[in-house]
Amino acid sequence: MPALQYLPAACAVALLAGCAVTGGGPAPADKRTSAEILAQSAPADWRALDPENLLVLRLASGSVVLELAPEFAPRHAANIRALAREKYFDGLVILRVQDNYVVQWGDPAEDERKRRRIRNALISLPPEFARGADGLAFTPLPDGDVYAPEVGHAGGFPAARGGGQAWLTHCYGMLGVGRGDSAESGSGAELYVVIGHAPRHLDRNITLAGRVVQGIEKLTVLPRGTGALGFYEKASQHVRIQSLRVAADLPPRERPQLEALRTDTETFQRFVAARRHRREAWFLDPVGHVELCNVPLPVRQAAR
Amino acid sequence: MPALQYLPAACAVALLAGCAVTGGGPAPADKRTSAEILAQSAPADWRALDPENLLVLRLASGSVVLELAPEFAPRHAANIRALAREKYFDGLVILRVQDNYVVQWGDPAEDERKRRRIRNALISLPPEFARGADGLAFTPLPDGDVYAPEVGHAGGFPAARGGGQAWLTHCYGMLGVGRGDSAESGSGAELYVVIGHAPRHLDRNITLAGRVVQGIEKLTVLPRGTGALGFYEKASQHVRIQSLRVAADLPPRERPQLEALRTDTETFQRFVAARRHRREAWFLDPVGHVELCNVPLPVRQAAR
Repeated sequence: MPALQYLPAACAVALLAGCAVTGGGPAPADKRTSAEILAQSAPADWRALDPENLLVLRLASGSVVLELAPEFAPRHAANIRALAREKYFDGLVILRVQDNYVVQWGDPAEDERKRRRIRNALISLPPEFARGADGLAFTPLPDGDVYAPEVGHAGGFPAARGGGQAWLTHCYGMLGVGRGDSAESGSGAELYVVIGHAPRHLDRNITLAGRVVQGIEKLTVLPRGTGALGFYEKASQHVRIQSLRVAADLPPRERPQLEALRTDTETFQRFVAARRHRREAWFLDPVGHVELCNVPLPVRQAAR
Repeated sequence: MPALQYLPAACAVALLAGCAVTGGGPAPADKRTSAEILAQSAPADWRALDPENLLVLRLASGSVVLELAPEFAPRHAANIRALAREKYFDGLVILRVQDNYVVQWGDPAEDERKRRRIRNALISLPPEFARGADGLAFTPLPDGDVYAPEVGHAGGFPAARGGGQAWLTHCYGMLGVGRGDSAESGSGAELYVVIGHAPRHLDRNITLAGRVVQGIEKLTVLPRGTGALGFYEKASQHVRIQSLRVAADLPPRERPQLEALRTDTETFQRFVAARRHRREAWFLDPVGHVELCNVPLPVRQAAR
């Protein structure tokens, strides 16, 4: 893995005097900002999001769109689709909003026997904490990581690699599968989204299955729960899920038409370089590094 | 600085089989969870927050309490106090809420000449991006960092150190001083709080002056602005600031009575060790690392 590289001490001392030396090696030859690189990207730099991998979560306040990650969690992606297809989530609720941590939804019945019955989907699954790294297109980041030997992007998702394995990482907006104390206790019937600083200590402790690609602000503005772990204390506080659907099952005109920047292209590498070495006039120190969860993963409306 | 240490590959591969080897060296001898360490802490492990360093931001929805960091930004702390004391912020507004980034408040007048006049405080200040590291009690973290040679805690704040300098870091909840393109353009009349994944690329690019110690959820649930950079597009969307006061200026019974866990004690080091090596039954992998902004900085109500 690449060694961590830091702002040289001489530069740190001289920072207020306008030191122009950067931390992460020489400035990239491409002088564009990340916004300019995106604006000048080619159609082939983007991928259309597959409606079979998109979930649409409808709340009274609007919709949240999530992309599943079957490359990392194929069984969980399949089971979440199966749950959506039996309309398992319709009328269930967001029951937990813990500040700087997660929004979580599912069946609020404390007694498991009183929870909605799962008809077609599986009621538990072996965990998919990691997969083999072989055969996975992985674009590494150069700045190192506190939690993993190597981090980068794969298939449009933030990920880590090491020991022959690869796994998704708990960045802002990631979708995870709640579980109890046993590894096999998750099914997808209880899901969460990260709404705070990346809780990377959850990586490989719990299965990640995708990420929010549109509308996360419908989740992040929800009132924080005042019970333990951010659970709502009263049923009247629960936020009702109108429906959760696989986009492919929606009438074509209701399907989100979204494109995501591919993470396996030269354009993406230039975009990351521009996020490491900031060209915007506001930056007095161009920084020279970027941490995995600070790399934006652009999504845009597809031309119809 | 300490080398980054990772979960050994053998353990990563064997993870699903219940591998007990940890990443960050041997497990600490103290077998308690971080919650148990806090519950069993001594009164001397806590410091009472000085009302001269506390700000109380009152909104219709309740109060947010912030602690200033004069050890790092003495001139900005003094100027923010001076602004609060001339009631500069009373009746001004929260004008920007950008998802996964910042909440910002100040005078919304686009024409600078139409903004509220600053009477006693300074209208601009030289930046306080960093200070000398000498004489600063600094408790380093062992797991390395992507952005700085060394990170840890000083005086109750997350911080970094390198090249003879020390500086505050942009973790969740940190309070910063908005500025324009020039380094000297900030005064404290425009303030922001981090409400998303730590934007560490702002470190040493902008002055940090403190952090939220209570009530951050009053800020994080605010509707996201739909204009560029998360600014509210209409004046009717602005969230009015009822008042912003130095706690010392409030009647004694209205002052927040808060204590923060000291960061220069053995208890804090044990607390950090317990966050690195997770003892809670839920964790299948005890992790073995902690990133700076994932270390909670506990605050509690003081006994009266």
